Amino acid sequence: MDKNIPMQSPPNERPNLPDGERVSVEAVRSLIRDALAEVGVLPVEATTIAELMSEADLTGADAHGVFRLPQYVRRVRARGLNPRPNITVERIAPAVGLIDGDNGFGHLVMARAADMAVTMARETGVAWVGARRSNHAGSAGVYAAMPAAQSMIGIYSAVASANHMAVWGGAETLLGTNPLAFGLPAKDGALVFDMATTVVSYGTVKNYALQGLDMPEGWFVNRTDGQPLTDPRRAAEGLLLPIGGYKGSGLALMLGLLAGTLNGAKFGRDVVDFNAEPGRECNTGHFIIALDLARFMPVDAFMAEVDRQLHDLRQSQRLPGIEAIRLPGDRRQQCRLERLRDGIPLSKNLLSELDGLAGQLGIPPLMRGT
Amino acid sequence: MDKNIPMQSPPNERPNLPDGERVSVEAVRSLIRDALAEVGVLPVEATTIAELMSEADLTGADAHGVFRLPQYVRRVRARGLNPRPNITVERIAPAVGLIDGDNGFGHLVMARAADMAVTMARETGVAWVGARRSNHAGSAGVYAAMPAAQSMIGIYSAVASANHMAVWGGAETLLGTNPLAFGLPAKDGALVFDMATTVVSYGTVKNYALQGLDMPEGWFVNRTDGQPLTDPRRAAEGLLLPIGGYKGSGLALMLGLLAGTLNGAKFGRDVVDFNAEPGRECNTGHFIIALDLARFMPVDAFMAEVDRQLHDLRQSQRLPGIEAIRLPGDRRQQCRLERLRDGIPLSKNLLSELDGLAGQLGIPPLMRGT
Repeated sequence: MDKNIPMQSPPNERPNLPDGERVSVEAVRSLIRDALAEVGVLPVEATTIAELMSEADLTGADAHGVFRLPQYVRRVRARGLNPRPNITVERIAPAVGLIDGDNGFGHLVMARAADMAVTMARETGVAWVGARRSNHAGSAGVYAAMPAAQSMIGIYSAVASANHMAVWGGAETLLGTNPLAFGLPAKDGALVFDMATTVVSYGTVKNYALQGLDMPEGWFVNRTDGQPLTDPRRAAEGLLLPIGGYKGSGLALMLGLLAGTLNGAKFGRDVVDFNAEPGRECNTGHFIIALDLARFMPVDAFMAEVDRQLHDLRQSQRLPGIEAIRLPGDRRQQCRLERLRDGIPLSKNLLSELDGLAGQLGIPPLMRGT
Repeated sequence: MDKNIPMQSPPNERPNLPDGERVSVEAVRSLIRDALAEVGVLPVEATTIAELMSEADLTGADAHGVFRLPQYVRRVRARGLNPRPNITVERIAPAVGLIDGDNGFGHLVMARAADMAVTMARETGVAWVGARRSNHAGSAGVYAAMPAAQSMIGIYSAVASANHMAVWGGAETLLGTNPLAFGLPAKDGALVFDMATTVVSYGTVKNYALQGLDMPEGWFVNRTDGQPLTDPRRAAEGLLLPIGGYKGSGLALMLGLLAGTLNGAKFGRDVVDFNAEPGRECNTGHFIIALDLARFMPVDAFMAEVDRQLHDLRQSQRLPGIEAIRLPGDRRQQCRLERLRDGIPLSKNLLSELDGLAGQLGIPPLMRGT
């Protein structure tokens, strides 16, 4: 924490895009579908992936949406990602599932996992589904929201697809930003809280680099001397810092063992950097929990009580200089509504990269305008 | 995070006790048993509580062990805590339990919850048990370790028994240090990671006050101006800071809704401060998850793989100035062995408080020596 501005707002994960454009979510989905179909993904599965990737764009998880499309395509073409997976599902206990993703898109694997968890939890009250041989699935919040849309509570975690953090005190990047996300049912869909166990996500760092902005101190340190590193283009020389020091490091470790090791997926030094090695299978692990809250109380009663509590927090006295208290999910909901209406803002760099990709693949370019 | 020493060790939760003494764990248990029996707790239940409280002392969670005894006794005498609860257990789904603690000791409630979770998880693979009308249960790690001792994975959380944190941006103490703990089976019992969602636990702050030490900047801010507050005796004027800023605040909120609201227990402004209001029922909520890892792979194979990963992290390159990499559970295990052998260090102040308590209750004083 920066002690000079202890009550700073969440870091801006989307620096302003003065030179960018807004495009409609339908145009984004169409580009994703076309690109994936072109590299061999079944149309129905390409539609699912496009839906889930664009959901990340809509909800403000910009580093997990269409931004990833060129990388995914590169991995499929390098045979590091299987476009036609035979995803297999095993119910290893009445309330536990284990999915083998056959190296397919993480989006497909985790959508299956969420479905399975909800189906089992209807019977057993709670269910846990792990996945191995999966891949990057995008935004954690998208999956935590799935049980929530079925009036259940969702909890999601994963081993990140590259290591950018050291164990506390260490100088080697052996841990990832391993996220933790919660989804609770709410009147307008889901109340979602989604956090990386690092101070910021690596996608944010990439966005800063793209925009030519310096990072605040407290995000990164140099590997050699542990001193602050603020140039995002030098991120590869640094260590992304965990939240709460040794706590965030410990949390990333525990989540990694549960999402990775327990499922027979990669963890620690074995993690494959999905950017650096496009041709190598990642064996990414995740887990999702669905809890049927209707076993505890009527869903409406729970939602009303959560509403009452959030309202009280939102109306509580503020520190000087704070204009409004923002709660988990607030930005997400606002962002979604605004972007459905006004389009998804994409930077000039990303637009030109996506145009290049469409050219290479011989598919229609991203349609501009909203 | 203090940017000048970004790689600092975990804060010292146990400042040196130059004027204290070490006492044997058996003496601590004996005092707890006698005191609780004297205020009406059944002997068999007093034994269980003494075991679990002293386990906190052994494992270094000093603010959750015998340190709490005078407060618990005060609450029982003020009729704020029921010494003879009729704890009821309901299996609300094949894999979900809900316990009503009848306002008894949290230790009894959560030991029952852990047992129930393990029993159900043997059948269903995973189980979730919530509790309401409970009380402070001491160290989160003690409960997460219970499934781990049965070769399962344990996850525990609770609504803290007083609010010391504001929602991010707020100036009112409406959130607690709501902890999250994980327990994994390991050869010597359990690998436990236990964290508060605040930078430090409130018990640590109390310990600093007892020792007359200043707190580092970054732990607390003033409610009026948001500036650093370092005098632990003025903690009541301040806000304990969450880890990772808005992230820790969001995590405490989510855990609080799941451990509190979902179980029909208190959350937010409704939380009863268990120090300030000794005669009022707290209705503390908790939850515990047990996951039967044997459904995924042989327990030995999992433990061996976790060992291999931890060994690799422990041996990894260190930042300059770091003598050794400490992993979750390391301090806990070392501390337990050392204290079993050498006794539990108690400060002069605490010893005299415990002697006073024994005098009041007419029970034998804490036996000195190890």
